[in-house]
Amino acid sequence: MNGAQALMKTLADAGIAVCFTNPGTSEMHFVAALDSEPRMRAVLALFEGVATGAADGYARMADKPAATLLHLGCGLGNGLANLHNARKGKVPVVNIVGDHATTHTQYDAQLQSDIETVARNVSPGFVRTSASTEALCQDAVDAVQAARGLPGQVATLILPADVSWGEGAQPCAPPAVPAAPAADDASVQAIAQLLRSGKKTALLLGGQALRKPGLLAAARIAAQAGVPLLAEVFPTRLTRGAGLPAVERIAYLAEMAGVQLADLEHLILVDAKAPVSFFAYPGKKSDLVPDGCSVHTLAAPEQDALASLEKLCAALGAQQAQPRLQAPLRPGRPTGRLTAPKVCKAVGHLLPEGAILIDEAITSGLMLGAMTAGCPRHDLITLTGGAIGQGLPNAVGAAIACPDRPVIALIGDGTAMYTIQALWSMAREQLHVVSIIFNNASYSVLNVELERVGAGEGGAKARAQLDLAGPRLNFAQLAQGMGVHAVRASTAEDFTQALEYALATPGPHLIEALVPESLSGAKRKLLPWLLKSLPSLPRPVARALKQKIAP
Amino acid sequence: MNGAQALMKTLADAGIAVCFTNPGTSEMHFVAALDSEPRMRAVLALFEGVATGAADGYARMADKPAATLLHLGCGLGNGLANLHNARKGKVPVVNIVGDHATTHTQYDAQLQSDIETVARNVSPGFVRTSASTEALCQDAVDAVQAARGLPGQVATLILPADVSWGEGAQPCAPPAVPAAPAADDASVQAIAQLLRSGKKTALLLGGQALRKPGLLAAARIAAQAGVPLLAEVFPTRLTRGAGLPAVERIAYLAEMAGVQLADLEHLILVDAKAPVSFFAYPGKKSDLVPDGCSVHTLAAPEQDALASLEKLCAALGAQQAQPRLQAPLRPGRPTGRLTAPKVCKAVGHLLPEGAILIDEAITSGLMLGAMTAGCPRHDLITLTGGAIGQGLPNAVGAAIACPDRPVIALIGDGTAMYTIQALWSMAREQLHVVSIIFNNASYSVLNVELERVGAGEGGAKARAQLDLAGPRLNFAQLAQGMGVHAVRASTAEDFTQALEYALATPGPHLIEALVPESLSGAKRKLLPWLLKSLPSLPRPVARALKQKIAP
Repeated sequence: MNGAQALMKTLADAGIAVCFTNPGTSEMHFVAALDSEPRMRAVLALFEGVATGAADGYARMADKPAATLLHLGCGLGNGLANLHNARKGKVPVVNIVGDHATTHTQYDAQLQSDIETVARNVSPGFVRTSASTEALCQDAVDAVQAARGLPGQVATLILPADVSWGEGAQPCAPPAVPAAPAADDASVQAIAQLLRSGKKTALLLGGQALRKPGLLAAARIAAQAGVPLLAEVFPTRLTRGAGLPAVERIAYLAEMAGVQLADLEHLILVDAKAPVSFFAYPGKKSDLVPDGCSVHTLAAPEQDALASLEKLCAALGAQQAQPRLQAPLRPGRPTGRLTAPKVCKAVGHLLPEGAILIDEAITSGLMLGAMTAGCPRHDLITLTGGAIGQGLPNAVGAAIACPDRPVIALIGDGTAMYTIQALWSMAREQLHVVSIIFNNASYSVLNVELERVGAGEGGAKARAQLDLAGPRLNFAQLAQGMGVHAVRASTAEDFTQALEYALATPGPHLIEALVPESLSGAKRKLLPWLLKSLPSLPRPVARALKQKIAP
Repeated sequence: MNGAQALMKTLADAGIAVCFTNPGTSEMHFVAALDSEPRMRAVLALFEGVATGAADGYARMADKPAATLLHLGCGLGNGLANLHNARKGKVPVVNIVGDHATTHTQYDAQLQSDIETVARNVSPGFVRTSASTEALCQDAVDAVQAARGLPGQVATLILPADVSWGEGAQPCAPPAVPAAPAADDASVQAIAQLLRSGKKTALLLGGQALRKPGLLAAARIAAQAGVPLLAEVFPTRLTRGAGLPAVERIAYLAEMAGVQLADLEHLILVDAKAPVSFFAYPGKKSDLVPDGCSVHTLAAPEQDALASLEKLCAALGAQQAQPRLQAPLRPGRPTGRLTAPKVCKAVGHLLPEGAILIDEAITSGLMLGAMTAGCPRHDLITLTGGAIGQGLPNAVGAAIACPDRPVIALIGDGTAMYTIQALWSMAREQLHVVSIIFNNASYSVLNVELERVGAGEGGAKARAQLDLAGPRLNFAQLAQGMGVHAVRASTAEDFTQALEYALATPGPHLIEALVPESLSGAKRKLLPWLLKSLPSLPRPVARALKQKIAP
């Protein structure tokens, strides 16, 4: 048995069932070994960012890692942005990065580069170059164990070609999955006491706490203590919909987050980090925790968030408390000229039970949360690391993890173009994914940010850098060129009908929504002024305004 | 004047006239500053790999660096593969990578990552995070100087947002361009003596030696000494065509390179490295220099290759020697069912004087060199670092560097998909680029490599990883979706007519050549056997066979 064959068996034994691939010559033995292991599914991507983003989406839904197969340092580089999103989302991924044979590296051939250095950016916890065919399978077990621990992480195993083709390899037994500890009794008691004190307190949930069991436990605590539930701004995976506790996500815009967090005396973190501004802005604080507010940790990312919440629930005697649950509610069918909010409305009107909703719509998705809050239960996946180009690849992986659940990916035009090659993998694997592209012909969010960072309104050259209108992209043609059924819609009626058809018809679909910018003209001019005013307004007015802008 | 404005002036003063951009929020002050500097052209890309590949292509043709503008570590990661190609080609590039404000990094916000670590992979010689607005412009001067030195390199300047927006910056004067030394007299005399010895010797040219003046000097030396001229396998830029000395590129396949280098007693390097195998293969040497052949360096990459060749020319008294020049010769117009060699033939039939030819056609481009050898003078750009996805972005940059010269990019279907977004930038800037995509629905080279590395013929799952037929891409639709005029051709007549039209009509065009695999069926089965046999055949037979396969 050669290294690649033993590695394949070791990965399959460790529960890895899918490998998202974009191989080159140095990975040919791994590719050949695919046929020796019926438990391993290989999904080809045309670009590494698709492979890594698919592995991320897969793990978010399957709750276990997939492998990627990447070609040397350049292949890893191409996959880096979506591995960054996985890292920030604490998502387990096992990268297999092929390298030149160990005997070949000394010659500095064309594709030679320092792979470990690149890998450290996204795999700070586990980067290893396998030194020999004999060591390979244990290296793989260690990589899977590192990836699957709490918090989940990206593990990178670098596989030299001669380690892969060498004979005499032995598969290794799968790693033990380490049990994560719950919060200790003293911490739980201290937080319980805080919650009984009547001080203005909120729970901030992230990571594992945003699945159904965690949400229910947190909602009982919230009901018992009379405190609000907040969620991190970009959850890895948030289970939501009618019959589940609703949580309010921290806003992307720091000024709005300020309104949400104002007056808090205590903030309790559950598998979440204390909120910080996404970017820095001149003269503004990056730390969003209000002055005088104490931050407490119930469960750190390396702890068991659910067990910790249940301990806190018990300490408060809240096991029988009635959690506030979201009532069923769907928006009506939108009509008239298509706009981004109407797209969100149509999605809310039709969202099927069990759908996987992927939100990378940036400004166009502002109303998505409100429009789908009362829909049947579904999962929401968001842009955890801020590296755009995540949504379409995530959809590939989520659909492979959950073949019986429809995937709806809402994607901005700018973001869609980073990893547009994902559409081909959707067609190849005949995945039931509906990709909705908001074509507003603009990096709309940057038009807002240009002014928010104090760089002024921008001259003609500056504005041109944020403008996608010359020429305007035709996403329906792009999708058709990759074998995906696609239509364009410029009325709400057409859009809604297209979405109905796509949801009812298995296989991939793309619907291009031709919409005006959500924040254009007067609205964009008003926004900076409004954001600046928010902190000085009376709280109820500020909250009402914030809800109006980003519910 | 803020940091960004002073930086913009400093870059323009240093001769940087173009910035290939894909900005985000942290780069908004740099974007705003574009309007303060009329000498700086900004070219937007939809993906960072396009921006970096365009900067590479620009510098190859303009002989000076462009800047890139990238968004944090993820943006740099997306641009890494084409920066790798630039690094391997010794091409100067100045990356400006925006970062969070220095005050913001401590909060580990979503987009925070270790940028310097990623940059070191491609910028080992210059990575600097500018520490203050005051230091910024000197940092930029140092970056430009590092990039422009000999050998050219990728320099990365990391620009924190607050360094960019800070006031009180002062532009700095441009760096002195350091003069590179020629080979010293002793080395020149020693090599001259070698060339007079009558031993079997060849000159291996690379880098700067492959431009017209270097080629002419080398050809005089070759004529005087009666030695052959070889060129590195993947030249950064090779000037060629009728009336110029012809050089024989080292073959990609090690077995064929072995035939070219067989029996050599001395190999003289001129801005080139000793030939090594592109990949390692079990049981085969990576070092392609024959046993017993001595390697000598006339000019290392940090030396002046042309001045060194001229010194050697003088030492040999070869200044008046008649160099062997390529005779004018064009292939006829191809007819019948379209194949990859016929595409190359049509290109040779029509190639205009002064064209820039970009070859990333992999197996489909095997005949390109032979078919264009006697065409009017043109420049050839190749895949220096082996990281596919270079060709289309290179075409963007080359066309911007040389607006009066037509650019013809020959690209494989697999490779085209890595940076297909380049087509949009061609349309936006209305560049006269003809992109020829060979659609053979396969990673054809990997079908060859699978067997060459000894991984066997591959089972169904393995073969599927190398197959792009399900679904077959439609590049004409992809191009049209990005605003580029495009047609598909499946006959040589249609293809040639489309190429004539494209060359005569300014603006971007894409011609999709529907071709069978160049190495399919019996040919592919024959190839490994043939390659294995080459070394044992009589030299003239081996050379004739090699010429037949890869002229």
